[in-house]
Amino acid sequence: MESPRRRGREAQSAARSAAARLPQAEWGSPRHATAPLALVDDGALERIHHASLSILEEIGMDFLSPQARAIAVAAGAKPGPEPERLRFDRGLVMDLVAKAPASFTLRGGRPGRDLAIGRGFTHWACVSSAPQVNDLDGGRRPGTQEDFRRFLRLGHSLNVISFFGGYPVEPQDLPAATRHLDCIADFLTMTDKVFHPYCLGATRIRDALHLIRLARGLTEDDLHQGPQCYTVVNSSSPLRYDAPMLDGLIEMARANQCVCFTPFTLAGAMAPITLAGAIAQQNAETLAGIVFAQMVRPGAPVIYGAYTSNVDMRTGAPAMGTPEYFKAALISGQLARFYGLPYRSSGGNASNAPDAQSIYETTFALWGAKLGQADIVMHAAGWLEGGLSASPEKLIIDAEILQGINAALSPVVVDDATLGLDAIREVGPGGHFFGAAHTMDRYTSAFYVPLLSDWSNFGAWTAAGSREALARAHETMTALIADYVPPPLDPARAEAVADFVAQRKAEGGALDA
Amino acid sequence: MESPRRRGREAQSAARSAAARLPQAEWGSPRHATAPLALVDDGALERIHHASLSILEEIGMDFLSPQARAIAVAAGAKPGPEPERLRFDRGLVMDLVAKAPASFTLRGGRPGRDLAIGRGFTHWACVSSAPQVNDLDGGRRPGTQEDFRRFLRLGHSLNVISFFGGYPVEPQDLPAATRHLDCIADFLTMTDKVFHPYCLGATRIRDALHLIRLARGLTEDDLHQGPQCYTVVNSSSPLRYDAPMLDGLIEMARANQCVCFTPFTLAGAMAPITLAGAIAQQNAETLAGIVFAQMVRPGAPVIYGAYTSNVDMRTGAPAMGTPEYFKAALISGQLARFYGLPYRSSGGNASNAPDAQSIYETTFALWGAKLGQADIVMHAAGWLEGGLSASPEKLIIDAEILQGINAALSPVVVDDATLGLDAIREVGPGGHFFGAAHTMDRYTSAFYVPLLSDWSNFGAWTAAGSREALARAHETMTALIADYVPPPLDPARAEAVADFVAQRKAEGGALDA
Repeated sequence: MESPRRRGREAQSAARSAAARLPQAEWGSPRHATAPLALVDDGALERIHHASLSILEEIGMDFLSPQARAIAVAAGAKPGPEPERLRFDRGLVMDLVAKAPASFTLRGGRPGRDLAIGRGFTHWACVSSAPQVNDLDGGRRPGTQEDFRRFLRLGHSLNVISFFGGYPVEPQDLPAATRHLDCIADFLTMTDKVFHPYCLGATRIRDALHLIRLARGLTEDDLHQGPQCYTVVNSSSPLRYDAPMLDGLIEMARANQCVCFTPFTLAGAMAPITLAGAIAQQNAETLAGIVFAQMVRPGAPVIYGAYTSNVDMRTGAPAMGTPEYFKAALISGQLARFYGLPYRSSGGNASNAPDAQSIYETTFALWGAKLGQADIVMHAAGWLEGGLSASPEKLIIDAEILQGINAALSPVVVDDATLGLDAIREVGPGGHFFGAAHTMDRYTSAFYVPLLSDWSNFGAWTAAGSREALARAHETMTALIADYVPPPLDPARAEAVADFVAQRKAEGGALDA
Repeated sequence: MESPRRRGREAQSAARSAAARLPQAEWGSPRHATAPLALVDDGALERIHHASLSILEEIGMDFLSPQARAIAVAAGAKPGPEPERLRFDRGLVMDLVAKAPASFTLRGGRPGRDLAIGRGFTHWACVSSAPQVNDLDGGRRPGTQEDFRRFLRLGHSLNVISFFGGYPVEPQDLPAATRHLDCIADFLTMTDKVFHPYCLGATRIRDALHLIRLARGLTEDDLHQGPQCYTVVNSSSPLRYDAPMLDGLIEMARANQCVCFTPFTLAGAMAPITLAGAIAQQNAETLAGIVFAQMVRPGAPVIYGAYTSNVDMRTGAPAMGTPEYFKAALISGQLARFYGLPYRSSGGNASNAPDAQSIYETTFALWGAKLGQADIVMHAAGWLEGGLSASPEKLIIDAEILQGINAALSPVVVDDATLGLDAIREVGPGGHFFGAAHTMDRYTSAFYVPLLSDWSNFGAWTAAGSREALARAHETMTALIADYVPPPLDPARAEAVADFVAQRKAEGGALDA
């Protein structure tokens, strides 16, 4: 967390808040106005489902944590003969998947920031886990705490960013064993949006949950009422869960916190080259995680995560925002709905610069997520290079795209007032609607107001300096950071957070993973 | 048309054809693999429909051609009392709309270039009608014949470009009265893809149809068998059809050629500020055109065109690729299907440069067109500035986007072979699929191969010169133009085309509009 002095200075700037200056969309995700887009028929969906159950029953998965294997075997999974292998009968899988809740509420730092999950909304997250930052001012370089905090300010200030994933950019200047303490404290004090601790062993999760209790004034019982945070557990595809992730998720599920299971099933590399096969494997891995969470605590809130993409078969490099990625996003949404589970998708692109490629690949990923009706979309804004760098300018461009997608798939009112026959009659053939009462009454709020787009004509645009979208995004980013105001926080709670961080740092931090 | 000498040189270069060098998608539009996306329910659709019929019955439209008014009144439209006004009873409208064919074939220069209309495909067109060209070599400047021909070469060479609209860029160095002769001759000799003559008076249409007969060796009877070309008739919104367009479309419909009716209903300017109202007016104007074409010749092939967007209410400037534009594309598709008519949508953006804004606005427009299941999409690639300039580099970027959309909404095969359980069993937990037989068998054709995207890592990309997508698009464009090969054409037909152009130029060209 930042120093109280800095917080004070920032609080004073509340009057000139970014929200007041920038034409942002209002906070809040719109309810889906269309049916989800289905790419395969019910028969194909069933075939994928049965293939996944066969994978879990016949091939099995390696669970690399002895503690996790013990829990799973006690709950009905079949061990061995391979040392770390577990197999799951299809009946057991379906019984346990049925225990997972179809919907729940993910709590933010205040009720206005809560996210309704499984209730017909798509929520967008800031980029996370990029080791590098890449911006117009400093180029591409390893991330630092200051970069991390810059993204927290931006993600907090942008209304269309519903929540955070992990660290937007990795603060590589902080020691690994205590980094989580600094970062979780920052999340809890610099923003009130939903965030997640990394699932790297039990200690980091315990520390995070304790910090959440301190910052939000919760008892242990309060915490257990429902998810105050979520984490993402990635399988190590193919068909393996690593020990730190399993040990962390046990802590999360025991505390009734939300776990999103997301295999990184790159078709042609860590999964079959065929989309059907890659998705069948993804589905098996995700279901195994969900089943295990239900073994730890029946009814534990979980999210069906999907991240199937393809590689460049000439080089093996991962690709994102490709046609295959889009298709996988639609089919994964169909599978999540088939199981009655909330669904997580992702933005993404593999471009090395915030150029045209980065934009069109990002839009493919985001449209796939939205049309597949994901509940949460990680990395929805600000990522480059397949996640290896985070770009604050691209965060602004993507925020515009996300606002646009929200607006594009919101309801259209068709009634006598909006059909406007009286206005059409009044104007008549050959006239114009600029001065009509019907127009003047709706003048300020009729249309989507862009965050970034410049619709001036070429002459006006040239006269104003021919600023392209990337340069304008840089200015918007700079203004947002200058105008950032931290959310209010009880000083006693802030002090408790700081004290706990200091105490745990003195103890050496997380030594288990 | 170009000189025979140049054609000879170009024909020699056939061996090093662009198609052989560039990793293009194959020619041909994929059949829709999903249901169309519906944004409003049937009740709302009916309300728009009834509002449109009320507009035509109660308010009416101005038809500025005396010849057209005479035809319409003879067929049941009610004239006056306003001098150029026509009103259409709702029964008459629906009777005549029912006479329009639900599907037909638009002929190209050879059968392989024909477009199936109304049969479950989306076909993409090159940008058209831009007065300026804007490229990396020469910046923004008025279009010339050489620019026009450059776009013809590019549009012909790119497989994903299914057809042409009007002149991609306006050859402003050619005289207005004979420009159509040069341009139609170029369309007929430099490409075999479907194209359209502008609907500016009867003479230009007659000249174009005569040139098509000469180039394709058709009798008058052959021409009348079905559409060898199409044209676009824009209403002059609100509620007016100008004389040259009406006189031209009479020639087209009489010859059984295809007419696409497209109002430019900018909400807040030439149409109500509310989307429902703007679309109701669009629908009235489009239906009036379709009704009139059926009055000229029952069964004449027509297309339901839609181009509803919004303006920037601060400046009145048109915006494109906005959320409103996307919504209008979905609802217009619903209306076209309601009437059983083929549907035309458009790409579009209002950016002054091929920057991030131009890309995300373009993708909104293209996804709206595809998800609304348009049969033809004008201006799908290469446009900037709301149509005021054409960019050859953006044409390449957009071709990549179009190839991606085609691939993203193509069917996914889910069977035992693609589910690949044997491969998953063979690889097992912790392995990888790079060397698996299942992978090797499908290695070259499993995934979409990009035309432009660069998936190399940051180090390799930097070592290769840090070329961003726009610079790569410039190189691809240059290679395509260098490798352009004109389609084969019988020398006698080419000579007949050249002779007719010379004769009509000697007569002064088109003097009627």
